[in-house]
Amino acid sequence: MQLKSKDLLDIETLAPEELTFILDTTETMKEVSARDIKKVPTLRGKTVVNLFLEASTRTRASFEIAAKRLSADTLTFTGTGSSLSKGETLMDMARNIQAMNPDMLVIRHQASGAPAMLARLLRIPVINAGDGWHEHPTQALLDMMTIREKKGKLSGLTVAIVGDITHSRVARSDLHGLRKMGCNVRLCGPFTMIPPYIDNLGAKVYPNIEEALKGVDVIIMLRIQLERQEVGLFPSIREYSRFYGLTTDRVGRAKKDVIIMHPGPINRGVEITPEVADGPYSVILDQVANGVAVRMAVLYLLSGAGGR
Amino acid sequence: MQLKSKDLLDIETLAPEELTFILDTTETMKEVSARDIKKVPTLRGKTVVNLFLEASTRTRASFEIAAKRLSADTLTFTGTGSSLSKGETLMDMARNIQAMNPDMLVIRHQASGAPAMLARLLRIPVINAGDGWHEHPTQALLDMMTIREKKGKLSGLTVAIVGDITHSRVARSDLHGLRKMGCNVRLCGPFTMIPPYIDNLGAKVYPNIEEALKGVDVIIMLRIQLERQEVGLFPSIREYSRFYGLTTDRVGRAKKDVIIMHPGPINRGVEITPEVADGPYSVILDQVANGVAVRMAVLYLLSGAGGR
Amino acid sequence: MQLKSKDLLDIETLAPEELTFILDTTETMKEVSARDIKKVPTLRGKTVVNLFLEASTRTRASFEIAAKRLSADTLTFTGTGSSLSKGETLMDMARNIQAMNPDMLVIRHQASGAPAMLARLLRIPVINAGDGWHEHPTQALLDMMTIREKKGKLSGLTVAIVGDITHSRVARSDLHGLRKMGCNVRLCGPFTMIPPYIDNLGAKVYPNIEEALKGVDVIIMLRIQLERQEVGLFPSIREYSRFYGLTTDRVGRAKKDVIIMHPGPINRGVEITPEVADGPYSVILDQVANGVAVRMAVLYLLSGAGGR
Repeated sequence: MQLKSKDLLDIETLAPEELTFILDTTETMKEVSARDIKKVPTLRGKTVVNLFLEASTRTRASFEIAAKRLSADTLTFTGTGSSLSKGETLMDMARNIQAMNPDMLVIRHQASGAPAMLARLLRIPVINAGDGWHEHPTQALLDMMTIREKKGKLSGLTVAIVGDITHSRVARSDLHGLRKMGCNVRLCGPFTMIPPYIDNLGAKVYPNIEEALKGVDVIIMLRIQLERQEVGLFPSIREYSRFYGLTTDRVGRAKKDVIIMHPGPINRGVEITPEVADGPYSVILDQVANGVAVRMAVLYLLSGAGGR
Repeated sequence: MQLKSKDLLDIETLAPEELTFILDTTETMKEVSARDIKKVPTLRGKTVVNLFLEASTRTRASFEIAAKRLSADTLTFTGTGSSLSKGETLMDMARNIQAMNPDMLVIRHQASGAPAMLARLLRIPVINAGDGWHEHPTQALLDMMTIREKKGKLSGLTVAIVGDITHSRVARSDLHGLRKMGCNVRLCGPFTMIPPYIDNLGAKVYPNIEEALKGVDVIIMLRIQLERQEVGLFPSIREYSRFYGLTTDRVGRAKKDVIIMHPGPINRGVEITPEVADGPYSVILDQVANGVAVRMAVLYLLSGAGGR
Repeated sequence: MQLKSKDLLDIETLAPEELTFILDTTETMKEVSARDIKKVPTLRGKTVVNLFLEASTRTRASFEIAAKRLSADTLTFTGTGSSLSKGETLMDMARNIQAMNPDMLVIRHQASGAPAMLARLLRIPVINAGDGWHEHPTQALLDMMTIREKKGKLSGLTVAIVGDITHSRVARSDLHGLRKMGCNVRLCGPFTMIPPYIDNLGAKVYPNIEEALKGVDVIIMLRIQLERQEVGLFPSIREYSRFYGLTTDRVGRAKKDVIIMHPGPINRGVEITPEVADGPYSVILDQVANGVAVRMAVLYLLSGAGGR
C-alpha cells in the first residue's frame, strides 16, 4: 500500500485506509524510538527542510527528532532573519529551497492554505505542520494513535473536543480524522467559539461542558490562545475557566476509563487544572511521544523510501 | 593543482586558472547532488562554522546543505543571541571559535573587509559569504558556473549587469570574475548607483538600459534593496522600475538565446517583471542549484581533503 | 569508577575524586579533538537537547561541538520563538522534551536552581550550563583542567579570582572546585561585589588588587557584565578599570610563571588590558579548547556509554 498524494496537507482528503496505514507504520517507528540506539539509516543522504514561519517548540522539535532518527539531514528556517523579511514571496522562497534539491519540505504557516499552495508548486513532498485555522494533520494522527493505543480501537468511541473550536486547526483535523475512523465527536465551547454549520461535518455541538462530557471515552481539551485573546471571544479568562475548564469534578462525568488529551502547550489553571493535567487519566505526554513516531512514519512514507 | 590562498575572500585576487579549477570541481560536485543518496564522506569529522552576522536565507542554507552533503558537521551563529551582543569584538569571537578547533569558517558580515581581517588572524580557512559592498565570491562563482553551463564557455560573451552597482558586492565580484574569464561586461544603472572610475576595471557604463541590453548574451539583474532605500538613490520605486526594470520588451533587445540571472531574492515587479523572472530565458533557479555545488567545491578544495 | 549523580548540577556537591575522574576523562577526550577525523561513534543514536534560555555563544557552541564529536544528534532551543513565549512553564516544556525521548538535557537559565528543579523532574541526565548567580560547573571544570595542564597539579596553588564575585556563577563554581582540589583561593573586588560570609567557604577576601595578586600562581579575571551594570555597583567603568583592571604592571605582582584566565567574553580595556589578554601569560584560548573536551567528558560520563 502507499499514500495517494505526494503530500500530507490535511486529514480531510485522506481515506480511512490511509489513516490506518499511517498509524500501522507509526507502530513500527515506535519500536525504533524504544531502542538503545534510536537511529535507522532509512533516510540517510536525504534532506528535510523545516520552514517554521510561526513560533513553535514542540512540533518543530518533534519533526527534527523524527528526521534525525531516520538519519536525514535537517535544515530549519524560522520567521526571523529569513529572506521573507527582505520582501521575498513565500512561493519564491520555496522555489529557491527546492532548487537546492532537498527531499521534503515541512511547513508551518499562519495562513490557511499556504502548504497546499506550495504543494502544487513544488515537486517534492510538502508536509503541513499547521496552517492558520485550517488543519494540523500530524497532530490529529498522533491523537488518533494515542487513542488507538490506549483503547485498542477507534471505532465506536465517543470523543469530546472542548475549547475554541473556531480558531483551532487541531479541532478541525481531529474532527475529520475521528469521524473517518468511526468515532462519535462532540464539540463544546462558548457560542463565540463554535463555527456555524460545523454539525454538517457530523459532530454534535454542546454549549454545556457537563453535558458534553457525559459518558465520553476521550476528552480533548484545546489550548486557549491567551496571546491572541484581545478580540474578546469571552469576558475573562477567569470566566472561561469557570465555565469550560477541565476539573476533577467534570472528569467524573466521563467514563471511568476516560483518557484526557491536550495538544499543548497547556495553560495550567485555565483550560485544565494541574490536578487533571498531571492526573491518572492524562495521556498528554504519551501524545508527545507518539508525535515523534507519527512524524517518522509520515517522513518515511512520503520519502518513497518504502518503495513508493 | 591547488588554490594559492588558504581562504576564499574575493574574486579579485584569484587567477583565471584558479577560477577554472573551482568551476571544474563544481561539475564533479553536481554529480553528487544528482544522486539518490546525495552524500559523500569527504569531510566526515570536519566541522564548518557558519557565522552569519547579516540576515540571509539562501546563502546560509546553501552553505549548510553543501557542508552536509560532504558529511561535515555544521555550527551556525547568527547575529542575535550571540556574544557580540555582550560587547565582544568580532576578532575575539573568531579566536574563540577557532580555539574549539573547527576546520573552516564561513562568514557573512556587513563590514567590507571583515572576512579578510579574520583570515589574517586565523589559521583555518575563511570563506567570505558576502561582506558589505565589497565582494561575494561564491555568488560570482555560481554565476560563472551557470553561464558556462548554459553557453558552453565564458570567453567572448557580453554580459550586462543592471541595477545598483555601487552598493552591490555581487556586481563587484561578478565584474572581476567575468573580466578574468574574458567576458565583455556592461554596467547599467542610474548615475547615483554607478561608482566613479568603475570603467578602470574594464567595464563599459550605460545609463540607458535599452542600449545596455543590445545584443548581450547574459543579463544579470541586481536586487534593489528596498529595505535600505531610505537614502533616496532614486525618486521612487515606480520610477526605478520604469527606467531600469527588466520587461519582456527589453529582453527583446538582447540576443535570441539570452539568459537572465538574478542573485535573489527577487522583487517581482520592481527590478524584474514576473513574466521575465518565470519566463523561458530565466536561469535564476539554476543559479541556486549551482550555488550548492559551488560551495561544496569551495569547502572541499579549501579543506585540504583533496590533498592540499 | 562512576559519577554518583545522574546529573551535573554544580561543583559544590561533587567529591574531589569525582572532579579528578572527570579531568582524567577530559584528557582522553582531548586526544580525540587532536585527530584529523575528530569524531568517535560513542554517542551515535543519542540525542542531546540544548536548552539555552539565556544568550550564549561560546558555551552553546562548545556543547554542540562536544556532542557532535561524540556523534550525538543535537537539538537546540533558545529563548525566542519557543513555547515559553506562549506561557508554558519551564517544567511543562521540559516534560514535553523528555517525552520525545532524548538522552540528555543541557540547560542554561537565568534562574538559580532551574537545572536542579528539572533534574528532580526528569529521569534523563541534566547538565547545568550556567544558572543565574548559582553555578557554572563545566566552566569550573575547564578552568581546573587548564590549571592542571599548565601547572601539572592543582593542590597547593594560590589562585586569585578578581571581579564581581557576588554576581558570578563562575566564581562560585571555581571557588568550590579549587578548594576541593587543595588550592588557596583569594577573592578580590569592590565591597559591593563581594558576598557576605564568603570567607566561610575558605577563601580570603582582598579589597586591594595589588595585595590579592602578590605571589599567586593563577589569576582568574571575571567579566564585568556591562549590559547589567545599571544598578550602580561601581561609580564608572573607568574607575572600575583603574582599580581592578588587570594591567601588565599588576601581573608583575604575581609569580613569574603565573597564568591568566578569563571565562570570556572579555571586555578589552575594562577588566583586562589587551596587552595582558593577548600576552604570554594568558591561557584564555586554552580554556576554550579545554571547554570542548570537558563537555565531551561530561556528556560521555553521564550518558552511561562508559557502562554507568
